[in-house]
Amino acid sequence: MIKVAVTGATGYAGGEVLRLLLAHPEVEIGALTAGSSAGSRFGEHQPHLLPLADRIVAETTADNLAGHDVVFLALPHGASGAVAAQLPDDVLVIDCGADHRLESSDDWAAYYGGDHAGTWPYGMPELITGSSRQRDALAGVRRIAVPGCNVTAVTLGLQPAVAAGIVESTDLVAVLANGFSGAGKALKTHLLASEGLGSASPYGVGGTHRHIPEIAQNLGRAGADEVTISFTPTLVPMARGILATATARLAPGVDADAARAVYEKAYGAEPFVHLLPEGQWPTTAATLGANVAHVQLAVDERAGRLVTVTAIDNLVKGTAGGAIQSMNLALGLPETTGLTTIGVAP
Amino acid sequence: MIKVAVTGATGYAGGEVLRLLLAHPEVEIGALTAGSSAGSRFGEHQPHLLPLADRIVAETTADNLAGHDVVFLALPHGASGAVAAQLPDDVLVIDCGADHRLESSDDWAAYYGGDHAGTWPYGMPELITGSSRQRDALAGVRRIAVPGCNVTAVTLGLQPAVAAGIVESTDLVAVLANGFSGAGKALKTHLLASEGLGSASPYGVGGTHRHIPEIAQNLGRAGADEVTISFTPTLVPMARGILATATARLAPGVDADAARAVYEKAYGAEPFVHLLPEGQWPTTAATLGANVAHVQLAVDERAGRLVTVTAIDNLVKGTAGGAIQSMNLALGLPETTGLTTIGVAP
Amino acid sequence: MIKVAVTGATGYAGGEVLRLLLAHPEVEIGALTAGSSAGSRFGEHQPHLLPLADRIVAETTADNLAGHDVVFLALPHGASGAVAAQLPDDVLVIDCGADHRLESSDDWAAYYGGDHAGTWPYGMPELITGSSRQRDALAGVRRIAVPGCNVTAVTLGLQPAVAAGIVESTDLVAVLANGFSGAGKALKTHLLASEGLGSASPYGVGGTHRHIPEIAQNLGRAGADEVTISFTPTLVPMARGILATATARLAPGVDADAARAVYEKAYGAEPFVHLLPEGQWPTTAATLGANVAHVQLAVDERAGRLVTVTAIDNLVKGTAGGAIQSMNLALGLPETTGLTTIGVAP
Amino acid sequence: MIKVAVTGATGYAGGEVLRLLLAHPEVEIGALTAGSSAGSRFGEHQPHLLPLADRIVAETTADNLAGHDVVFLALPHGASGAVAAQLPDDVLVIDCGADHRLESSDDWAAYYGGDHAGTWPYGMPELITGSSRQRDALAGVRRIAVPGCNVTAVTLGLQPAVAAGIVESTDLVAVLANGFSGAGKALKTHLLASEGLGSASPYGVGGTHRHIPEIAQNLGRAGADEVTISFTPTLVPMARGILATATARLAPGVDADAARAVYEKAYGAEPFVHLLPEGQWPTTAATLGANVAHVQLAVDERAGRLVTVTAIDNLVKGTAGGAIQSMNLALGLPETTGLTTIGVAP
Repeated sequence: MIKVAVTGATGYAGGEVLRLLLAHPEVEIGALTAGSSAGSRFGEHQPHLLPLADRIVAETTADNLAGHDVVFLALPHGASGAVAAQLPDDVLVIDCGADHRLESSDDWAAYYGGDHAGTWPYGMPELITGSSRQRDALAGVRRIAVPGCNVTAVTLGLQPAVAAGIVESTDLVAVLANGFSGAGKALKTHLLASEGLGSASPYGVGGTHRHIPEIAQNLGRAGADEVTISFTPTLVPMARGILATATARLAPGVDADAARAVYEKAYGAEPFVHLLPEGQWPTTAATLGANVAHVQLAVDERAGRLVTVTAIDNLVKGTAGGAIQSMNLALGLPETTGLTTIGVAP
Repeated sequence: MIKVAVTGATGYAGGEVLRLLLAHPEVEIGALTAGSSAGSRFGEHQPHLLPLADRIVAETTADNLAGHDVVFLALPHGASGAVAAQLPDDVLVIDCGADHRLESSDDWAAYYGGDHAGTWPYGMPELITGSSRQRDALAGVRRIAVPGCNVTAVTLGLQPAVAAGIVESTDLVAVLANGFSGAGKALKTHLLASEGLGSASPYGVGGTHRHIPEIAQNLGRAGADEVTISFTPTLVPMARGILATATARLAPGVDADAARAVYEKAYGAEPFVHLLPEGQWPTTAATLGANVAHVQLAVDERAGRLVTVTAIDNLVKGTAGGAIQSMNLALGLPETTGLTTIGVAP
Repeated sequence: MIKVAVTGATGYAGGEVLRLLLAHPEVEIGALTAGSSAGSRFGEHQPHLLPLADRIVAETTADNLAGHDVVFLALPHGASGAVAAQLPDDVLVIDCGADHRLESSDDWAAYYGGDHAGTWPYGMPELITGSSRQRDALAGVRRIAVPGCNVTAVTLGLQPAVAAGIVESTDLVAVLANGFSGAGKALKTHLLASEGLGSASPYGVGGTHRHIPEIAQNLGRAGADEVTISFTPTLVPMARGILATATARLAPGVDADAARAVYEKAYGAEPFVHLLPEGQWPTTAATLGANVAHVQLAVDERAGRLVTVTAIDNLVKGTAGGAIQSMNLALGLPETTGLTTIGVAP
Repeated sequence: MIKVAVTGATGYAGGEVLRLLLAHPEVEIGALTAGSSAGSRFGEHQPHLLPLADRIVAETTADNLAGHDVVFLALPHGASGAVAAQLPDDVLVIDCGADHRLESSDDWAAYYGGDHAGTWPYGMPELITGSSRQRDALAGVRRIAVPGCNVTAVTLGLQPAVAAGIVESTDLVAVLANGFSGAGKALKTHLLASEGLGSASPYGVGGTHRHIPEIAQNLGRAGADEVTISFTPTLVPMARGILATATARLAPGVDADAARAVYEKAYGAEPFVHLLPEGQWPTTAATLGANVAHVQLAVDERAGRLVTVTAIDNLVKGTAGGAIQSMNLALGLPETTGLTTIGVAP
């Protein structure tokens, strides 16, 4: 059995990693660590994870993380670097935070600030990388940077078109409907249920959102020379889920059939990305709890734009599921081990 | 007192017209009519409208609508024309449906199908029409076509920039988060609470939505030579509210201060359109139940786009409130009579 | 005009008092005070209250509260006493907190702890007090204790039956579905949107909830010799609203007609308590934003219990609306001034 | 492999049976049948069940159901009898509807009307039946009646206390917060998202709900001489979940420790019923998608009542999960095969 530790185990990302690991047949769950909740009963924080309810949360220290084959870091942005530095090279470290996603230190400085912790292999197996996919780059690695949840949705929506050259990669526009768990278990007024129930509101508008350079990086790897994107996430009253509407200007002469063929070819063999039949549009509910993206597209000839809509569960395909999928690849397990595409609906 | 009848009184739009009329100091409520629910107690259908609860719903006939100064039509698209034809010319008829909004019969045929009922004065007082506003065109009229709710949100978001020429009016992109009441009280599976709770999904994607030609018509009146727009509404789990994220390519040399100045000038004197202070973004909750639009904008220089976000209550500023605002203008009452900008939050 | 100050103006109760005062024709709004948010722009905290958006929040000091005719206290429990002590006797002070509700210092000590601030006239005009109603006791007073929101719902549901002796007042059972705003704008994990969306959970179970002695006090005034009640509120995914299901053992020989007659008699003349027609059950949506309680009852002969269901908006009839209704009585204004029974639905 | 057919496959109960069967290692999914949606692509109705998306829905006929080892009936109440009559005796038939739950034909007639289809072994393995549990009665059976969802929640909450005699079984009171999926995929106005979002409302009040005789039957089998219960379900804005607050009068001399001991003994060995640690209360979110009940209790000495709160997912432990648990027992598989206690939260 593969022994796994999870830091930030009492948060939403850490909890979801554990929920999925509990269904993974090759994994044994070791240390559960956290910051201020160290010393408390795990079931107080994650009552849905019954098999772990009586565990005691440990502090996030090198000692407590020692002796594991895999360590998931589900920490606030900027905190992963220091913990990772204390872990041996032969341990598989999977960072669910942002610290090791970006290749460009300038982008890190511009969007996050502070020192750049470095760049790790990027944990999005489906990412188109020239004539290959990113999964080829994950075999045997011991460090993985898990993509951002919004990034996953937008990248999956747009990358086939970008890679095939049927759209322009400049002047992309993406607007997302986001569930609240993407914001983490943070005590902020605008995240209160009273504020969120019955309301929708945007955040990070106008080119300031930290997911922008990561989207550009991905689409660049998929083949774009230059990427510009207007990106606006909006909080809507659901606990989970991202519905990303991402559009791009069509290249001349591209019609609906051609566009559809590109997506069928890109995703026909992907186990966790599902192109819906023509005429059926994604709902986030259909992806709830599942490691799956539902994708649909339309060619709007009047507007001259390709419109793609992608639904994911931000905590699964957007975070923990993608992380475990990447873990499987790094460890040489079948990529789909322990993961399901079946959502919990209604 | 002005005597008012409401058709479609048991639906959401009709109910909201009545909710607002009950707070209007110059109005007396006359006939409440409907289709299949005629003969039943009104309180069964609209239990929140206590003062009318014991009324009996009448059939929508010319006889029942006779003797009123104002008749609101809150009927399914395509049904208004026949009813309106039976009403005298000197009665103020306000159509909350789509039948009389479009100027172009070709647009009607392309997006709705069937015969075009004709074009009535358009009930959006804030619409920029060259150097004037549409309110000037509403004084004394006896027929008013109430705008679509999505149209209102997108138009208010984009028209100052279009009119001032600080953006291109081609290649607009709008994505909306929509509450369910915009779809009406229709018995369809995808409108069930079980389907909608905890989910987000798009509809009318790819240039097929009927609100598109109406947006183009408005922005054309605001000054655009040509309008193309990619428009995608999405259902999110709230009963009311529209959050419209609408973007446009910036004209060369436009910076944030210039853009803001355009919006301040456009909306500084508008009683029902509120430009939020810099840094504060709209929430639909703040507009709930109120005849108000909250607008904010950002200049995304990297992306080369102006991003506007507009929040309204689809049933108020998006339908019934705008209708009553237009009624006031048509009847020579102060435009704000009986209307509030104060939302019900949280 | 009556000049009114509101403490705790940035919270949910204070905000709702202000929302209603803005619609009150006899009132001028003076100081808006708060604790940690003093010095900030009011619109940051209550963006739905547009006419006050540019005000600056003041500190809650005697100086800032001086010169007003009415002062509303919307402070955390235990904080009202000290502020009230600094206000002149001839100012009408209306405490939306719990400090002055209970008559029994022992109950205060048992359920709240600490020193009892004292007992003020109780602001529930509809409370049955022997052959009279509590409104008679409110004329001309200068101190008012506003009831708890849960207390209002349960009292209105049960008091006619208790007063008429058609039920036993021991072994009452009440279970409530509660919107989150009842818990205030408090930064606690279980109040986060991620936790609340899609979930229901109880709180204060097993006889510990602080509203219990207040319910007993009310029903005692309505005529009960002794009151025991099992009381369980539950948080459900809505921002506002209380649906209280309150049951009592039927006295011998009471049938449905007799029970209904008791409620018709009790509430037939009440402006803000509405007994629904037979067969129609309350929905909290119908009361949203309105100063109204919708009440319905059933006689369950098999179970030997009267079942009452009461819907209110916790922030309106449950707090701010009841407070203003009481203010009107204290100041000699018509009781209904500035208040509506019309909810915002759907 | 066990070959399984599901009728009513396009509804919520049928869909959930299939969701769970897809995770069952011993099962192969055969016919998917339905009524009016026969002939359509299954993925149109249940887009979350990707592995079955391209199946075509068959009609519910004896021919289509032939050749299966197990047939689940997920049909409207009253429809199961006719279908079941056409199925061979050696096929395991599991009825998720009400038709075969009740032992008393009089109860059937009183609460459902029409002819009683008969009584099948009752599919609640945890039901206390004297000194045994109902699971013992399920080994090898070929007909199973799946309990009602509300019944499951109330029975699990109260049966330990009733069986141990620490409460009176007369004058029980239960009030439930219910997600909308319990009402099925039915096109009714009060089930629309616009009606349900932001609202709570009761249904089946006053002793008329069909689940009442079934609760009484269960508690009778658990040891009660006579059962009377006041039972009120309320719809709250969530797609799934039941939070049942069920109370009973305490027998003399029962304290908190004694009551807790009874529950620990009753449920300590149950795989799918979890007594929470003292002080921790159930949330429905923690049970979402899982075959588990979370139970907590309190002794309210002032009120003289035991208060129990039980959370389940109505579609899993309340329907499909309990059904598969019973299937496992009937077929001689380990009871927990293919089922999880781990919820999807937040």
